[in-house]
Amino acid sequence: MSEARVSASLRLASDDFQDIRPRFADVRAALAEGADPVGLALKAADRAAAAAAEGIFTALIPRESVAASARAAAGRARAGEDLPLLGLTFSVKDNVHVAGMATTCNCPAFSVMPGESALVVTRLEAAGAVLIGKNTMDQFATGLNGTRTPEPLCRNALDPAFIPGGSSSGSAVAVARGIVSFALGSDTGGSGRVPAACNGIVGVKPTVGLVSNRGVIYNSRLLDCVPVFAACVTEANEILRAIAGFDPGDAWSRRDADAIEVTIQDPAGARLAVPRASQMRFFGDDAAETAFAANLARLRTLGFVLEEIDFSPFEEAGRLVFQSALVAERLVDYGDVIIQDRDRIHPAVLAAIEPGLSYSAKDAFEVVYRIKELKRAAELALDGYAALVVPTIPTIFTIEEMLAEPLARNTVMGTYTYFVNPMDLCAVSVPGAPARAGLPSALSFIGLAGKDGVVAGLARSFAAERA
Amino acid sequence: MSEARVSASLRLASDDFQDIRPRFADVRAALAEGADPVGLALKAADRAAAAAAEGIFTALIPRESVAASARAAAGRARAGEDLPLLGLTFSVKDNVHVAGMATTCNCPAFSVMPGESALVVTRLEAAGAVLIGKNTMDQFATGLNGTRTPEPLCRNALDPAFIPGGSSSGSAVAVARGIVSFALGSDTGGSGRVPAACNGIVGVKPTVGLVSNRGVIYNSRLLDCVPVFAACVTEANEILRAIAGFDPGDAWSRRDADAIEVTIQDPAGARLAVPRASQMRFFGDDAAETAFAANLARLRTLGFVLEEIDFSPFEEAGRLVFQSALVAERLVDYGDVIIQDRDRIHPAVLAAIEPGLSYSAKDAFEVVYRIKELKRAAELALDGYAALVVPTIPTIFTIEEMLAEPLARNTVMGTYTYFVNPMDLCAVSVPGAPARAGLPSALSFIGLAGKDGVVAGLARSFAAERA
Repeated sequence: MSEARVSASLRLASDDFQDIRPRFADVRAALAEGADPVGLALKAADRAAAAAAEGIFTALIPRESVAASARAAAGRARAGEDLPLLGLTFSVKDNVHVAGMATTCNCPAFSVMPGESALVVTRLEAAGAVLIGKNTMDQFATGLNGTRTPEPLCRNALDPAFIPGGSSSGSAVAVARGIVSFALGSDTGGSGRVPAACNGIVGVKPTVGLVSNRGVIYNSRLLDCVPVFAACVTEANEILRAIAGFDPGDAWSRRDADAIEVTIQDPAGARLAVPRASQMRFFGDDAAETAFAANLARLRTLGFVLEEIDFSPFEEAGRLVFQSALVAERLVDYGDVIIQDRDRIHPAVLAAIEPGLSYSAKDAFEVVYRIKELKRAAELALDGYAALVVPTIPTIFTIEEMLAEPLARNTVMGTYTYFVNPMDLCAVSVPGAPARAGLPSALSFIGLAGKDGVVAGLARSFAAERA
Repeated sequence: MSEARVSASLRLASDDFQDIRPRFADVRAALAEGADPVGLALKAADRAAAAAAEGIFTALIPRESVAASARAAAGRARAGEDLPLLGLTFSVKDNVHVAGMATTCNCPAFSVMPGESALVVTRLEAAGAVLIGKNTMDQFATGLNGTRTPEPLCRNALDPAFIPGGSSSGSAVAVARGIVSFALGSDTGGSGRVPAACNGIVGVKPTVGLVSNRGVIYNSRLLDCVPVFAACVTEANEILRAIAGFDPGDAWSRRDADAIEVTIQDPAGARLAVPRASQMRFFGDDAAETAFAANLARLRTLGFVLEEIDFSPFEEAGRLVFQSALVAERLVDYGDVIIQDRDRIHPAVLAAIEPGLSYSAKDAFEVVYRIKELKRAAELALDGYAALVVPTIPTIFTIEEMLAEPLARNTVMGTYTYFVNPMDLCAVSVPGAPARAGLPSALSFIGLAGKDGVVAGLARSFAAERA
């Protein structure tokens, strides 16, 4: 086909089904009515291109490549192959390898050209989903607010005055803006949940080791995992099921990954733990506090039994993520650039990571031991509970507020997320009652390792999605 | 009872059944014939006291206390309680806490008085076994030869010119000399197997986390476990079953400990992996090489299928134990004494541990990562094999030879044991065909984590013990 004819064909395809949102049900209804997967993918590419100046993507897949991928998927489907994600589009955070595209972690001084895509990307493409681009992020996934990036800053999808949350800012905003059907990020201390909360969507942070990390630039092999952003729990869970499973090529993949029940579980009548009221912190945000109370009231209305537990072990675990030798894990995968190109590192990122240089091996082992003890503490604390329920974020800041106090206010954002990975927990964040400036609050359902299907069931019930 | 009457009673009790060996079957036969458990325990105490000058024990339980423990156990048994270990006596390495006795790790500068006994001791006593004393060891369990101790040096039970092996030297010798029925040690890099090999007995090194480490002074929380020394596989396995199981109070206890099959499995027709012949090292000890060949021939005669595999990943894992930041783990539990009392630390121990001070947190995390990768490598290498079979020790040295080259020759002793714990493997060492100076060789059956019952079955079959 000549280039001109390709272009004409692409235009035609993308002109059909103009109004199809990338939501799973809409896409599938359109496919059932005869929509071309190529057209659906190109619509997503067009939406991404239209937002090119808004700091959501670090790189877009060329339109022709998007069309070629979609065409290949459509061809496989016509040949009888089962492609459960056909017609869906996605984007990935720029610390996830995509073959042929530089992985930058949003730090131009650190740019690697991967030979292969991350296994999660390969799995999604094998299931028929089409990748549209790579998302902006707090540099080196070090931040929970989304402003630790080159210009233009990525803005909140619901109110551009506010932070998008981070570090998977672009991934969450791309979903919230309806550009793609779903997106992948990474989560060390909350990066798969905080931006979901800020932008009114769902963030699913799986049990560490349930989803392969092969081909993702690590902050922390002890803590990192790949979360899913989607518009609802049902969709996010479908993607989680597509990417979950044991990967012998990833030393951190759980041996029992295939045995973990990822399918959404019926949560009827579950007992839920909440921190003691005296331990809850909202940093003066009365709207957030009111919204959390409303969210808990809704849970009680739904028939769940809420009981207060001591939150202090969770707080301690949270502090380890940045206030311990764990920070030195950051030096393994990108320590050279931190040390040799410090002028080219975002100052807030440098301030967070550089202390890692001063810790000893003994310090490191002591924190490894403490993590083991805190995992056990979490098991004991949550014994008998389907999940711990906390606000995903204690408050939200405008971009202006965040830039005025970029370290302290970033730490505030992690109040209810930092502890989750050190304690080997899984979590789902869903939007809740309105909070500051009418932005939605968000609730996190947090379960013990392997309870991914349980926390999904709780979140779906709270969100009143149809089973 | 007056003191004089107690003493008379003790004498009388220990005079009965003079010739009863502490082997399990002999003890039980004696009990069946009416022997008093108090008498049996006092016989062990007498044997230990008679050997007091031979460097086997660091401390003995007072005779009256031994009698009191045995009397209490006998009383419980008479009251109908099931005490499966009634009549058996044991000793523990001096890094295992016993309430009321100092734990010294054979370093007088480090002496702690524990409030409670280690859980393993408590479990054995609850089952009716009586503790006789605490065993000498290479200081801080750092050594595989048994000479890194204060005088008098502990000597090989079979030929006093030779090293007893370490670091659990006294534990193995106490069993080999027939002083106690069984003994406990600790194993980081081979301390539960090398002394068994040197003294012609069985050493069972469980999967790390199968047996609680609560109340044991750690070298390495990543690697340490409590091994069992006994005269045969059947006896050692019985003790392992008594002490195995999940301990919520030990953060390193495996969640699945109770699900691990510890009972001896039928090994008939198993496939066994052996290192390529070109990778085998005997350091010039032709007798050891000949014995290993004879041991493998015996395995083939027994119907096992032997296949060569690449030993290099195992060698790499072995090097990590002392040639990496892992050494810094030693600083956590007894670093203060290493730093502040260096003049009072055995020079070979100091030379092994002091390099830990120079490693960074990044170094520590890198070795933690490498261990994860090597565990996976072991899983792949041993996939389809019931066990890896190697000599437990590549050769043996006289005490004189060891003292002449205390560092290099100690490292030689770990050739086939160091890699086992970093790769999350379990092992049983059993005596084999005669080697140097007529001392028995020893074979290690090494399985993946959780295969404790499988390697026990292989070892028992090789040793031709009755099932």
